[in-house]
Amino acid sequence: MPYPQLNERFQQIRRTTELICAPLTPEDMVVQVMVDASPPKWHLAHTTWFFETFLLKPYLPQYKEFNPDFNFLFNSYYESIGKRLQRTNRGNITRPSGAEVLEYRYYVNAHMLQLLDLELDKAVLDFLELGLQHEQQHQELLVTDLKYTLGTNPLFPVYMEKTYNQGAIIDQQWLPINEGVYTIGFSGEGFSFDNETPAHKVYLESYCLSNRLITNGEYIQFIEGKGYETSHFWLMEGWEWRKKEQVEAPLYWFKQDNTWFQYTLAGFQEVDILAPVTHISFYEAYAFAKWSGFRLPTEQEWEVASQLYPFSNHSVFAGSFLFHPQRETEFNLLGNCWQWCYSNYNPYPNYQQAEGALGEYNGKFMINQMVLRGGSCATPQSHIRNTYRNFFHPVKRWQFSGIRLAKSL
Amino acid sequence: MPYPQLNERFQQIRRTTELICAPLTPEDMVVQVMVDASPPKWHLAHTTWFFETFLLKPYLPQYKEFNPDFNFLFNSYYESIGKRLQRTNRGNITRPSGAEVLEYRYYVNAHMLQLLDLELDKAVLDFLELGLQHEQQHQELLVTDLKYTLGTNPLFPVYMEKTYNQGAIIDQQWLPINEGVYTIGFSGEGFSFDNETPAHKVYLESYCLSNRLITNGEYIQFIEGKGYETSHFWLMEGWEWRKKEQVEAPLYWFKQDNTWFQYTLAGFQEVDILAPVTHISFYEAYAFAKWSGFRLPTEQEWEVASQLYPFSNHSVFAGSFLFHPQRETEFNLLGNCWQWCYSNYNPYPNYQQAEGALGEYNGKFMINQMVLRGGSCATPQSHIRNTYRNFFHPVKRWQFSGIRLAKSL
Amino acid sequence: MPYPQLNERFQQIRRTTELICAPLTPEDMVVQVMVDASPPKWHLAHTTWFFETFLLKPYLPQYKEFNPDFNFLFNSYYESIGKRLQRTNRGNITRPSGAEVLEYRYYVNAHMLQLLDLELDKAVLDFLELGLQHEQQHQELLVTDLKYTLGTNPLFPVYMEKTYNQGAIIDQQWLPINEGVYTIGFSGEGFSFDNETPAHKVYLESYCLSNRLITNGEYIQFIEGKGYETSHFWLMEGWEWRKKEQVEAPLYWFKQDNTWFQYTLAGFQEVDILAPVTHISFYEAYAFAKWSGFRLPTEQEWEVASQLYPFSNHSVFAGSFLFHPQRETEFNLLGNCWQWCYSNYNPYPNYQQAEGALGEYNGKFMINQMVLRGGSCATPQSHIRNTYRNFFHPVKRWQFSGIRLAKSL
Amino acid sequence: MPYPQLNERFQQIRRTTELICAPLTPEDMVVQVMVDASPPKWHLAHTTWFFETFLLKPYLPQYKEFNPDFNFLFNSYYESIGKRLQRTNRGNITRPSGAEVLEYRYYVNAHMLQLLDLELDKAVLDFLELGLQHEQQHQELLVTDLKYTLGTNPLFPVYMEKTYNQGAIIDQQWLPINEGVYTIGFSGEGFSFDNETPAHKVYLESYCLSNRLITNGEYIQFIEGKGYETSHFWLMEGWEWRKKEQVEAPLYWFKQDNTWFQYTLAGFQEVDILAPVTHISFYEAYAFAKWSGFRLPTEQEWEVASQLYPFSNHSVFAGSFLFHPQRETEFNLLGNCWQWCYSNYNPYPNYQQAEGALGEYNGKFMINQMVLRGGSCATPQSHIRNTYRNFFHPVKRWQFSGIRLAKSL
Repeated sequence: MPYPQLNERFQQIRRTTELICAPLTPEDMVVQVMVDASPPKWHLAHTTWFFETFLLKPYLPQYKEFNPDFNFLFNSYYESIGKRLQRTNRGNITRPSGAEVLEYRYYVNAHMLQLLDLELDKAVLDFLELGLQHEQQHQELLVTDLKYTLGTNPLFPVYMEKTYNQGAIIDQQWLPINEGVYTIGFSGEGFSFDNETPAHKVYLESYCLSNRLITNGEYIQFIEGKGYETSHFWLMEGWEWRKKEQVEAPLYWFKQDNTWFQYTLAGFQEVDILAPVTHISFYEAYAFAKWSGFRLPTEQEWEVASQLYPFSNHSVFAGSFLFHPQRETEFNLLGNCWQWCYSNYNPYPNYQQAEGALGEYNGKFMINQMVLRGGSCATPQSHIRNTYRNFFHPVKRWQFSGIRLAKSL
Repeated sequence: MPYPQLNERFQQIRRTTELICAPLTPEDMVVQVMVDASPPKWHLAHTTWFFETFLLKPYLPQYKEFNPDFNFLFNSYYESIGKRLQRTNRGNITRPSGAEVLEYRYYVNAHMLQLLDLELDKAVLDFLELGLQHEQQHQELLVTDLKYTLGTNPLFPVYMEKTYNQGAIIDQQWLPINEGVYTIGFSGEGFSFDNETPAHKVYLESYCLSNRLITNGEYIQFIEGKGYETSHFWLMEGWEWRKKEQVEAPLYWFKQDNTWFQYTLAGFQEVDILAPVTHISFYEAYAFAKWSGFRLPTEQEWEVASQLYPFSNHSVFAGSFLFHPQRETEFNLLGNCWQWCYSNYNPYPNYQQAEGALGEYNGKFMINQMVLRGGSCATPQSHIRNTYRNFFHPVKRWQFSGIRLAKSL
Repeated sequence: MPYPQLNERFQQIRRTTELICAPLTPEDMVVQVMVDASPPKWHLAHTTWFFETFLLKPYLPQYKEFNPDFNFLFNSYYESIGKRLQRTNRGNITRPSGAEVLEYRYYVNAHMLQLLDLELDKAVLDFLELGLQHEQQHQELLVTDLKYTLGTNPLFPVYMEKTYNQGAIIDQQWLPINEGVYTIGFSGEGFSFDNETPAHKVYLESYCLSNRLITNGEYIQFIEGKGYETSHFWLMEGWEWRKKEQVEAPLYWFKQDNTWFQYTLAGFQEVDILAPVTHISFYEAYAFAKWSGFRLPTEQEWEVASQLYPFSNHSVFAGSFLFHPQRETEFNLLGNCWQWCYSNYNPYPNYQQAEGALGEYNGKFMINQMVLRGGSCATPQSHIRNTYRNFFHPVKRWQFSGIRLAKSL
Repeated sequence: MPYPQLNERFQQIRRTTELICAPLTPEDMVVQVMVDASPPKWHLAHTTWFFETFLLKPYLPQYKEFNPDFNFLFNSYYESIGKRLQRTNRGNITRPSGAEVLEYRYYVNAHMLQLLDLELDKAVLDFLELGLQHEQQHQELLVTDLKYTLGTNPLFPVYMEKTYNQGAIIDQQWLPINEGVYTIGFSGEGFSFDNETPAHKVYLESYCLSNRLITNGEYIQFIEGKGYETSHFWLMEGWEWRKKEQVEAPLYWFKQDNTWFQYTLAGFQEVDILAPVTHISFYEAYAFAKWSGFRLPTEQEWEVASQLYPFSNHSVFAGSFLFHPQRETEFNLLGNCWQWCYSNYNPYPNYQQAEGALGEYNGKFMINQMVLRGGSCATPQSHIRNTYRNFFHPVKRWQFSGIRLAKSL
């Protein structure tokens, strides 16, 4: 066994994905309530397809494909790998059943362990690392997608009981950063996605970043201060979106008898005013910032501050901890909620897209999306780093997305 | 036990609904691939809700509702019974699970049997009869809906093995009917829906009706004769629909290497040229008739012919028999496929809509839909009669719908 | 001049079309505010194209087409005559200008008069008659289409001053008709469209038809009686339409300070409670009838009543007389408003569609539309007859459409 | 007359707007073929409304509004100024007529000249300058909007005859720029929009910018090299857009008998292979750049290069000169075509949005749009400067938008 640690890590990550699905029924595993939220069964199969397509088929001698139809069913967006199911149809595919998909996982796992018994080129090991990182990305999506399915069910089912205690709010402080040339982006050892590279210099004007996230209590002040009804706090397309979709509060919030409730993975609960606000769009984050008199940071500002204030352990609880019960003592820029930046997900200077299918991993999404930084309560811990660039369209709300404010000096 | 036969019949019909679902997986039970095709789980629950809402709650003393949320979830379209889930969302509801829905069925069944131990008013017995007829209607929809879910899955799963032998085509003959005043519509003993009443006189010009349905083989001639590419065979809205939806053959048909295949409940099979064509829209039926030089009958013409030629046992096989293995020797106007009529689903003269929630059963759908007559291989046999008025929008194809031609003299 | 009367009539009808446009600006002539309401300039050109295409090109020796591009621009829906502009784009075509279109009209008129100097076959004369009838149909559409354009302009421009006096309401009476076999449909001398033929027998149950139309005052009672908020008065698709489109009153009605106003061709005016209600959909007509305890007639009932009560001169004023200042003393089933019938626009028994392009005139529209009978204040008088079948989709409101009630006995 | 030059400039700019409309018919003035392309009449009125609303009403004593309805009709997007016509409806408004709108212009002009006879505060003069700049922006939109209307007319009308001679292609060269800190953004005297400020430092890696625009001939190589059929040259959303809209060439291009033609303001013409390609979306510009092996510049790269190479007079002809017959000897980064940058239209560091209605001028559009730099053949010459930030959504093609390549070192 030439790679005992990798072997162990492979198995642990694969198992975690299945554990996330453990509280689900077979019915929960198959439906797709909105186009962004893929069925858990699809996530289980797609992450497996990734290992089969990019590792086993090319590199394991005499590997026999589990089922040739699965390439069509479980390819996500790789044009170079052939035709694929329309994304909107993922929830229509009742067969293969959940049990068959698990069989597929076990089949591929077993062959992956065979592969790991061979001596592998660095290129193969890089693919494997990408497969693991890819699976961890889908673990987070699994959580947000299943929350969406359960959270739009009128019965508001409990996914898991809440296992942490409520925290205390910390004082808001401004962390100052001087103008100057800084370096951002990933460099050095370890894994990163191509979109985090290359490291490069940026010039920043002086600014401050807040030491903590905006809380539900502060967000309720925005709501009660007519933030949702006042057009001049909003970007024009945000305002049109808000009116058309009749948005009046974060996703999963409901007002009953003058009290705000929200659907959480622990069920229907009163909103915790000390927890960070989450499940808001970029448009809402922008409007809140404008209402507050401050602004959202750029991703460059966010990353430089994270370099300068690495030990800051101010924190508030996230709405529902999954992977990180200890999050409350962690570095506060990370975890809890992703934080919308006023930066578009565009390539860094000198960014190089990979060759072949893996070149489709990141580069082709670099348009119309906003960057989020930090990580959330649903992000696998080893997946969190301060160069990581998450990205979504400005209307999306089903991720654990929140607000950290900045101000110019 | 004052109603032993009714008791028996109630149990038999309820059991049949569940048997139809027996070959399905839990995943098959929950999804909704298109708005018309409700999830099997929903059918199981909705037919149960009907008995609970219209029989148990008002008439069984001290009946305790199984779950108050279910009224919202499983009401289909009764405005007078309160708010309801949007039809488009039926496939999003993973909870209650299939197991819970079966529990709901058993709970309601048990209480229905308690009710059947009481002496019941005629009004209550009428409701009960309606509930049974309603459940039988949903048995047919269950079959067509699950066929749609399985038939759009790229794996084309087998629902049941084919259990009949192929038949021989019979000669096409014209059954003549003289002009005159005839009576149509339901009268006499036994059950009918309100839309079949009252019986009334109609004046018909002389005409002929064909003794059999159009076969797949004849339909292939229409396809090969450029029927789908020739605008003047089509109604204008049919032509627009055909172009927009790129319709070039019946639903579930696929051409591979110059041979026509179709998805059937027995899986992916070569098209049987002797079987009646089915899964076509009214627009296609109209275009075929025009291409052939004949026309579709009106529902009045259909019904009068069925009175005059009741013993005609010319027949061809349906694509997949479910309830009626003996269909081949049956009265040929019924069974096999529903037959599109060039008649709108409008009220008969002196039609009276019922009071209250049951008044919503039929009358409010009397617009924009075309009548189909006969019954199909998926229609419960006791549910077939020659006054029965089925109805669908002219674009619908997921029912077992076919063509019987007429001509004027 | 072999046809002096026809020559005269041709010129008079052509002139009338232009007179309808006289109060319009060049800008009014070109826009298309909704897909149904074609630009006046298009009507002027299309009616001319009809004569050029079906009369001059085939029958006038050495006729030279005015402009070959016009066949593409001004064909309405004749598939057999070649490609055509999408209906939705008619309002985008600023060139040819209105002046050029008038030039086109005069050019075609001059050549038509040359044609009328020849001895013509009956077939050619029939086409000519159809061209005149066709132009008269477009005269009515011109009026309703320009009303839509002006009526959705916030300035509510006046098209013409009101030139009639307000009338007095007449008592509502029920005109009884006995059950029996009657003949309807066109026969005999003179022009009719193919959809009015052949004359044929129908059997009617006994019924009554109202002697007059429903007035605005009566319709306001329906509104105030929560007719628009009560689902059980409505067909299901009507109810869905009403909610989606937020319909709460007839088209062109506005409530200000508790008084109902409406846009009329004479500008923005208070609603006249004695005038017949108009600009309502079939769905609204149905709901009103249900609310009133009566029902809409079928087209057969309407036509037979018009045969039996031909001299009835009960009348109420229409909202805005165009062609018929004398309408108030006319036969009251005709004029004022078209009357929605609960009959679909389907073919009569033994209906024969014409050969060639003219076969596209009527038959291909025989689906999804409801029949209206009578004629309106915008209908050319010579165009009114009791066999005439007008037809529109049940949601349409921009025609002068109203309500005459019926009841069964 | 305290401001003779301003008085003169005001009159000249206002007259220019009307001159652009001189070749149009009244019909051309009113229609809106797509939502982005407003009717010329609307532009004439809206620019006038701007002066009336922001200058005359607040600052000219006893000014009487021309027509109170015009605020609703001709407000573009200022939420703070009251309700407004939906943008999609601008083409439905046939009244006021073009003549009335001209009357409105003359009325407002006359009163503006009265205002210019008074001593005015700097704040008022700033508003006036903004009004003039605003009107010049609309002059360019007028040209692109009327081109769209005429260019989608099957008759392809000529707007103006071509008045320049064809040029010769210049050699492509790379202009090198070293890495370092540079300052961009507007500072100093003269007018700028708020979005160009404040001037600020940026750090750039070393790069090269091309000395000229991509030509039609080069773009044809991309088309013939299957650029439009090869997914990996495209951003994913660009690829989806291309497939859905069936885009296969720049807007206004048509292939006939293997030759490319295009609609120009001088009518339907063969594509000039030496002229710069224009009317392409950001997605097409991106795909071309990727196909070529280079990339699009950022707006910072573009602006710094324009500082370093100010006298470069390499040039190629634009497709159709309007304001700039001398463009061929001009500074080549400006004029001809706007150049898509791979930069989002986001605020500069320390950007301050103005107070009140004018704060709506730019800031609220800072999402989902890409920056274009340079200016086009339709841009008023005094309106061109190297800090100017134009912006459009990445799918837009009706502007004169083209490609200048960059490369990293």
